Amino acid sequence: MFNKLLIVGCGLIGSSILRASIKKKIAQKYFVYEKSIKNNSTIKKINSKVILLKKLDHNISDIDFIILSTPMSSYSRIITSLNKFLTNKAIITDVGSTKKNVLKLKKNELNKSLNWILSHPIAGSEVSGPEYGKANLFKNRWCIITKQKTDKKVEKVERFWKKIGCKVIFMSPDEHDKIFAITSHLPHLIAYNLIKTAQDFQHKERKNLIKFSAGGLRDFSRTAASNEIMWRDIFFNNKKNMLLGINMFLKNLNSFKKNIEKLEDIKLRKKLLNSKKIRKEIIKLKQDVSEPDFGRK
Amino acid sequence: MFNKLLIVGCGLIGSSILRASIKKKIAQKYFVYEKSIKNNSTIKKINSKVILLKKLDHNISDIDFIILSTPMSSYSRIITSLNKFLTNKAIITDVGSTKKNVLKLKKNELNKSLNWILSHPIAGSEVSGPEYGKANLFKNRWCIITKQKTDKKVEKVERFWKKIGCKVIFMSPDEHDKIFAITSHLPHLIAYNLIKTAQDFQHKERKNLIKFSAGGLRDFSRTAASNEIMWRDIFFNNKKNMLLGINMFLKNLNSFKKNIEKLEDIKLRKKLLNSKKIRKEIIKLKQDVSEPDFGRK
Repeated sequence: MFNKLLIVGCGLIGSSILRASIKKKIAQKYFVYEKSIKNNSTIKKINSKVILLKKLDHNISDIDFIILSTPMSSYSRIITSLNKFLTNKAIITDVGSTKKNVLKLKKNELNKSLNWILSHPIAGSEVSGPEYGKANLFKNRWCIITKQKTDKKVEKVERFWKKIGCKVIFMSPDEHDKIFAITSHLPHLIAYNLIKTAQDFQHKERKNLIKFSAGGLRDFSRTAASNEIMWRDIFFNNKKNMLLGINMFLKNLNSFKKNIEKLEDIKLRKKLLNSKKIRKEIIKLKQDVSEPDFGRK
Repeated sequence: MFNKLLIVGCGLIGSSILRASIKKKIAQKYFVYEKSIKNNSTIKKINSKVILLKKLDHNISDIDFIILSTPMSSYSRIITSLNKFLTNKAIITDVGSTKKNVLKLKKNELNKSLNWILSHPIAGSEVSGPEYGKANLFKNRWCIITKQKTDKKVEKVERFWKKIGCKVIFMSPDEHDKIFAITSHLPHLIAYNLIKTAQDFQHKERKNLIKFSAGGLRDFSRTAASNEIMWRDIFFNNKKNMLLGINMFLKNLNSFKKNIEKLEDIKLRKKLLNSKKIRKEIIKLKQDVSEPDFGRK
């Protein structure tokens, strides 16, 4: 598909793209720019063909496909190099978890001659680093591509994601950021907040909670162990939708609190029962397995 | 260990106790009292030895071990029958998820001559019903027994839980209810609240969220699919601790909201980073596996 593919930022996601691309023979040559020395030595072991770049300089002038998989807060600095050294033959894409901010960066900072097609593959884990990357990370996962006038370049990015396993869907940045605020960003913030609350409680009561965390807390602790830079970037960049989501959440929690305080049986049970519906739909749409979870072994 | 064992309420937990007890030869004879006709036909298939009772009447007078595994809101009604028909040779235990309320019931409603030792095995799933029960549900799970003067009967209950796989720990009802408010009850309420929020958003924005729920929401939907009667009972019976937990949670969420609103980078990152510590502890204490979760297949 491509001659020279460059991955900028090669952690969990970048190294998974690298592994999948090599496996699917996406390019002739594979380049990686990754600033962590420790990560570089891990990446070398993935495949001897991979060429590690020390800088984003004239070396990138004949790259034809670049994927940004750093935290979004590094995009601006990277764009400076792309503007200097890249040509209009290259296609740029990214994996950022919010899209309105990236579109804004593209419009305000990227040379008009360069081609950036915004993507967001919905894949990941609570762990970070190239040692955790997997070639099949994207298998059957959604990849959102920002809606725009379709041309050969957009089609090529679409084909790329499909080749490494994704189901592709087009969406406006606005719609993307609204939907993922609720399905991903708010759940992560809530998990962080629950863990913070458990820590405060543990500190205040001097009790060992962790020992008994299998009853629910455990599942949230996994989500709340995710990378802090990545999530800071997401929360800040999707601020407007996050605040809307937090406010809806607070309103509902205050209502649950009232139900419990006043022992409002019928109101409470109706809400608890209602939650089951969404679970059934999630399983129907193959976003989770129906097999019940009895705790991990 | 026992001659006649009776399980009152034979859903997920009751039928798992039944299966484990038969496997470990806990008793000579196994009795079940379960009010759902559908469940009774499932239970018959578990083992032909199981004797299904139609009523809690004179039939139970020579039972020597009774386990209550109905929702806690049924205990009071059951105690009336126990008072009428049970003798002091029997040991009663239960699996209720809160303990102060059960101790109060015992003190206020149970005949003084009868023996009730309060238990709480920390095991379960989001599914309900005897068809989901498993003999190894309790393997390596904590079982809390309410602290009291140790005698032969307490030791026997302890031996029982150990035989079917549990690690037993003694705790005061007060300590129990405080700890599980944070490790189990609050996480469940928060999961229900997040799903409610997603449903409200879906309704308001007429967007399909479910399709993209693998990014976080999915994990909460599992917890929020748990039995509504059981959880209503827990929230109401642990009201005081729930309200304390909700208030701590609200305070923290308002603080996170402020961090996002004002883009308070250092404060936010410090909190996100802090959450990782609890995760490491959870894994160290074998409450979860360290293997990262990349989404279920």
